[in-house]
Amino acid sequence: MRDLNEGTLTNETIRAVTGGSDKRISQVSEALVRHLHAFIREIEPSQAEWEYGIKFLTRVGKQCSDTRQEFILLSDTLGVSMLVDAINHRQSEGATETTVFGPFYVENRPQLPLGANMSPDETGTPLFVSGTVRALDGQPIAGALVDAWHSDEVGHYDVQVGDDLRMRALFRSDAEGRFWFWTVRPTFYPIPNDGPVGDMLAAQGRHPYRPEHVHFMISAPGQQTLVTHLFIDNDPYLDSDVVFGVKNSLITDYSRHDAGTAPDGSTCHRDFLTLNYDFVLNPEAE
Amino acid sequence: MRDLNEGTLTNETIRAVTGGSDKRISQVSEALVRHLHAFIREIEPSQAEWEYGIKFLTRVGKQCSDTRQEFILLSDTLGVSMLVDAINHRQSEGATETTVFGPFYVENRPQLPLGANMSPDETGTPLFVSGTVRALDGQPIAGALVDAWHSDEVGHYDVQVGDDLRMRALFRSDAEGRFWFWTVRPTFYPIPNDGPVGDMLAAQGRHPYRPEHVHFMISAPGQQTLVTHLFIDNDPYLDSDVVFGVKNSLITDYSRHDAGTAPDGSTCHRDFLTLNYDFVLNPEAE
Repeated sequence: MRDLNEGTLTNETIRAVTGGSDKRISQVSEALVRHLHAFIREIEPSQAEWEYGIKFLTRVGKQCSDTRQEFILLSDTLGVSMLVDAINHRQSEGATETTVFGPFYVENRPQLPLGANMSPDETGTPLFVSGTVRALDGQPIAGALVDAWHSDEVGHYDVQVGDDLRMRALFRSDAEGRFWFWTVRPTFYPIPNDGPVGDMLAAQGRHPYRPEHVHFMISAPGQQTLVTHLFIDNDPYLDSDVVFGVKNSLITDYSRHDAGTAPDGSTCHRDFLTLNYDFVLNPEAE
Repeated sequence: MRDLNEGTLTNETIRAVTGGSDKRISQVSEALVRHLHAFIREIEPSQAEWEYGIKFLTRVGKQCSDTRQEFILLSDTLGVSMLVDAINHRQSEGATETTVFGPFYVENRPQLPLGANMSPDETGTPLFVSGTVRALDGQPIAGALVDAWHSDEVGHYDVQVGDDLRMRALFRSDAEGRFWFWTVRPTFYPIPNDGPVGDMLAAQGRHPYRPEHVHFMISAPGQQTLVTHLFIDNDPYLDSDVVFGVKNSLITDYSRHDAGTAPDGSTCHRDFLTLNYDFVLNPEAE
C-alpha cells in the first residue's frame, strides 16, 4: 500500500476501510469510498476547489448549535432527507405519508393538556387544530404522543428568535384517539439562509422557501413513529419546496370562522381558523 | 415538484440544484446529488443511521479549530486527499512527486535565515536538513520559499501541545537554490484519534499511524507549488500509512554522524543525523 496512483488508490482505500469486524460498517465504508471517489474522479476538483469543499463542510459544522442543525439543512436541501424518508417508508398503503423531520425539533418541549394554547402570547390568527390518531385497521389509538411544532406568523420558529419555547408542545391523545389544541397560524418561510447552506442555495439559483406547514411527530406503542407535516392548499411554494417535502395527501386547508364559539366549546373573541386531519399509523415491523 | 418518491426524487433534485448561472457550480452540484443519492440508494440507511451520519459530520465540524482540521483528516483517511493530489499532478515526469498537505500547516509560521535551528529548545536527535530546489530543466531556483514542518521525537506537532510554534519554519533558497537548517528527528505518529475520525478508524479496524516524515511546501514564481514529504526508509508504517501518502521516490534515509563538525561548518556536540534531498519543481501550466 505505497506508491498509490489514480489507478490503484480507490481499491486500496476500500481494502483499508473494510477490515473491521462489523459487517454493516464495512459495507457502508466500502460504498462511501466507492461513490465519493467516483464523484471526485468525475468532477476532478482543483486543489483550490477541494479546499473550498473542506472549508464549506467546516462552516456547516460550526453553524450547528443546540437550536440549529445546518447538516440537516444540507441533507434536506440536497434531497437526501426525503430520499432516506422514502426508503424507510415503502409500506405506507393506507397510512399517513411521511415527510422531513427538519432542523427545528426541540427535545425539551413543553407537555400540555389537550385543548391548551401552545402560543397564548403570540400575535397572529388564532388556529384550532384537531384530529384523531388511528391504527391501520381504523381503531383509534388512545394515549398516542402527538408532537406539534411550527413557525410564527412571520415565518420564524421560537428557537430562531429567543430562548422561550412557543408554538410547540407535546400532547397525548384521549381515549378515542383524539387530540386538539390552540395555536396561531404559521406562514411560509425561508429556511435559515445566513449560513453556508444559504450560500449554496444562492449559488444554485434557488429560493430558500418552504410552504406553510405544521410539523407533527406521532408515536404509540407497537406503531412506527410518524414524522410528517400538514401543508395548506394554494401556498405559493407547494411546487418548489426547497427541501422537496410536499406530498399531495398532506395538503389540507383551514376552515374560516367568525369570532364566537369554537369546536371545543370555548369562545374565541377574534375570527379564527380550524384545521382537522386524521392520522393513520403503520404498525411496527415484526 | 411535489409528491416526489424514490423514482422521481433524484432527477427533480438535480433539476433544482442546476438552475444557477455558474456552469461549474451546476456541474459539481449535479454530480454531487447523483453520486450522493446513489450512495444512499445503495446502503439504504435507517433513520437512525442517517441521524448517526448527521451527528458524525457535526462532530467533525465541531472538532475543527485554528490548529486542527478534522475534515482534512477525514478526507485524508478516506483516500480523497491523495486522489485529488493525483488528479492535480499528472504531468510530473522528472519533477518531485507530491503527497498530502495534512492538517498541521500553520500560516503564521516563523521565517528563519538559512542555517537556523527551527527547534533549538527541543530534546531529541539533532538533524541537519539540506537540499537544492531546481526547475525541471535542472537550473537551480534562487529565492524559492521552502516551508518545512514535522513532529517532535514522540510524534506530536507543536500545535498539538501548546501555542509555541516550533519544528516549523519558512526558509528562502540561496543564489544556488540551496537551503539548509537544523531541527530534531521526528518519528512516526498516530494522527489525532481522540475525535470522530479516530472513532471511524477504530470502527474500520485501522491503526491511526503515519510513517516518520518531514513536510515540505516549496514555491517559486513561474513554478507549481510543490507539497510533499520526505519519508525515512525502513519505517514500520511505510506500507500502511493511514492517509495513503507514501511514494517510493520520496523515501530517503538519514546519514548518521558522530559529534563534531557538521556540513555547514558548525560544531555539533552530540551525535547527529543529516538528510539531503533535491527537489524539482514543475513549471506552471501555460
